[in-house]
Amino acid sequence: MGSRAGIVVTGTEVLTGRVADRNGPWLAEELRQAGVDISNIVVVGDRPEDLRASIEFLIGSGVDLIVTSGGLGPTADDLTAEVVAGVQGRAFALDEALAAEVAAIVDRLSAGRGWGATPEATAAANRKQAMVPFGAAVLAPVGTAPGLVVPAPDGTVGPPVVVLPGPPRELQGMWPAALAHPLVQAALAGRAELRQSTLRIWGTPEQTIAATLREHDAILGGLEITTCLRDAELEVVTRYAPSAQPAYDALVSVIREEYAERAYSLDGRTVDEIVATALISRGATIGTAEALAGATVVGRMLDRPGASKYLRGGVIPYANAPKRELLGLTDELMKSVGSVSAEAAEALAEGARSALHTDVGVGITGMAGPVGSTLKPVGLVYICVVGDGAAADPTTGARVVLAREINLPGSRTDIGARAVAIAMHMIRELLVR
Amino acid sequence: MGSRAGIVVTGTEVLTGRVADRNGPWLAEELRQAGVDISNIVVVGDRPEDLRASIEFLIGSGVDLIVTSGGLGPTADDLTAEVVAGVQGRAFALDEALAAEVAAIVDRLSAGRGWGATPEATAAANRKQAMVPFGAAVLAPVGTAPGLVVPAPDGTVGPPVVVLPGPPRELQGMWPAALAHPLVQAALAGRAELRQSTLRIWGTPEQTIAATLREHDAILGGLEITTCLRDAELEVVTRYAPSAQPAYDALVSVIREEYAERAYSLDGRTVDEIVATALISRGATIGTAEALAGATVVGRMLDRPGASKYLRGGVIPYANAPKRELLGLTDELMKSVGSVSAEAAEALAEGARSALHTDVGVGITGMAGPVGSTLKPVGLVYICVVGDGAAADPTTGARVVLAREINLPGSRTDIGARAVAIAMHMIRELLVR
Repeated sequence: MGSRAGIVVTGTEVLTGRVADRNGPWLAEELRQAGVDISNIVVVGDRPEDLRASIEFLIGSGVDLIVTSGGLGPTADDLTAEVVAGVQGRAFALDEALAAEVAAIVDRLSAGRGWGATPEATAAANRKQAMVPFGAAVLAPVGTAPGLVVPAPDGTVGPPVVVLPGPPRELQGMWPAALAHPLVQAALAGRAELRQSTLRIWGTPEQTIAATLREHDAILGGLEITTCLRDAELEVVTRYAPSAQPAYDALVSVIREEYAERAYSLDGRTVDEIVATALISRGATIGTAEALAGATVVGRMLDRPGASKYLRGGVIPYANAPKRELLGLTDELMKSVGSVSAEAAEALAEGARSALHTDVGVGITGMAGPVGSTLKPVGLVYICVVGDGAAADPTTGARVVLAREINLPGSRTDIGARAVAIAMHMIRELLVR
Repeated sequence: MGSRAGIVVTGTEVLTGRVADRNGPWLAEELRQAGVDISNIVVVGDRPEDLRASIEFLIGSGVDLIVTSGGLGPTADDLTAEVVAGVQGRAFALDEALAAEVAAIVDRLSAGRGWGATPEATAAANRKQAMVPFGAAVLAPVGTAPGLVVPAPDGTVGPPVVVLPGPPRELQGMWPAALAHPLVQAALAGRAELRQSTLRIWGTPEQTIAATLREHDAILGGLEITTCLRDAELEVVTRYAPSAQPAYDALVSVIREEYAERAYSLDGRTVDEIVATALISRGATIGTAEALAGATVVGRMLDRPGASKYLRGGVIPYANAPKRELLGLTDELMKSVGSVSAEAAEALAEGARSALHTDVGVGITGMAGPVGSTLKPVGLVYICVVGDGAAADPTTGARVVLAREINLPGSRTDIGARAVAIAMHMIRELLVR
């Protein structure tokens, strides 16, 4: 059976979508790697009765451990510690030594910043962050808030609740100490390795993979397969016990055979990883010129540590002047076929190569909306990827040009994200052949 | 008391964080605008027993309506409709007319794309998407999957379950029909207006606002105030019934008085909106030169419809050559003080103004990691914003330069996002004075 945990993410700002939750998924993945399965992530606002009901739901569902994130701050809406104390039947009292520790941290943080909190306000806030349920273990603060491990009510059997702060950096910094705590280790005594592997397929609808899986159902026992289509990419994620490894290997064979090169990643590597590795192994450099709102290839590449090995930069020409002056598009081209055209995309790709001195140039132009025209409706996008030098055709040494015209549905952000995903795959196709 | 709803987001890909949930928060905000309060968003994997337990938890918590997202696709892990049928005590059967409708949509989508699904596989997938709980209403597909409104078991009182597809575009397109459905309207008969207003404060720690709220507690009755610190910006969101409007007005007065210009938004407008409005009203243009990984100002501005009115573009020079050739940084500057320096940030800002012909230039340079140096550690960032022309000082007409050196904690992405947020506020300070 193994161990199971539930996660409670608190905060009206998360419940109402003003802040995207990063903690629930991060904790889920950490727990999975530790051999613990997750039943639910419950998002709840800053209301004590809703928070209590959420924790009690998870206790009732029989999980072995509950982890909460958020609600440990100094304001009155931060009430997780108090609610958890109540659920676990424990008195809630000030820990003087901890209050002094929090005060020292806050003093250090605010030194010289002129934040203007009065000493009384600061002291009250510090005291609030140092309230501890009786019998709970304290996890040392990473920011200002201490974490807690709160055992089940004395004399009962039930899951301990690990209470962690909301800021992702603090939560992630505190997690190793939480996981290593003897109470947590004891609660997770039943954990068992749960493997997770990912296959990625490009340019295939979910209907097709559904048919493939149905056809081979007999040999896929013991696999928990989930499929997800995102930006035209199909992700097939399988969770399985080590004993089902042969079934998983069979799945990989089936996918390899039926999808051939469309199954571009059989080991879980993302297109971003594959492109980065290919650029490094060829010693090739890349630059972009992108005139489409919503998202950029250069932005996506910048997110990746080590990008400086191959990424020379990007030019984002939103007006016509920089297209002409920085990237060499001619007035003639922009007047005759327009700056949203296949010709413009190729000129942008070439312009990027030349302005940034790279082997690969990426040019994107299109209508991200909200307003299009009859000839050029919202969603029309042209992408061109040019490879030369270290990224030229490896057998002939010739310059390679890949170009696509596409019509994408959705919002400005959807169109941008989809176009960037397609461009990443075109770069992959250029480099991996 | 008003009406309350609960939201269930299904999908192992969401539970494990491979896909960020966009549906829960979107539905929460739509429901709030419709006068419906939200108790929880429950994220659950593609496992029937966990999904059933989550829906039953929400029914048990006494909500008036449940909305689910996801799990309506053609693969075997898509099981929401069947589980909801079970919870609501309803038989589950093929709707032949709906199957034909889904088939027509799938045929149209796959025409000419060579997706390679066999007719049998396609037919099986279509049939799966046309299974309907007895007595449920069907919501017309926006993509391929129909939605459902599934009433409580016959002869009982309980919340109907609205079953919506997972792709955000499909869910959002189907929502108006779901909300307008008579069963949903009847379930939400008790709804009452719930106002939500936001104040934004820059450069103030959460401890200070905690003190302010505690001090004025007596006059803030009837307000549900939540505070959230993000990228050095404090967001104060208040939910209240119309009868508490005077208390909210009192809160605004207190914040205006105690925080003065640090409370830069009393009407909820974001720094992005304020900057866009200020650029338009001054007739000023803006361009950026950004040599910091993790996030970019130009990318953030591109997300905003109508950005072409003021945004001329951005240059992202990751190597030194484009800094020199496109933006005019001298080799002397890069050798003497280095390209991560206050001087380089100002030269980038000036370079952006000149290369992109704008009134405002933004220059950012820094160490986003993972590797820094002794003199220039990870997190060291220089930002410079220069205003001239239409963005010069309005009284003297003089060129204005704002510059900051900061040390930011966290990951590459944290550092980038924080730097971009600070840059947005520097642009605001330049324009709004």
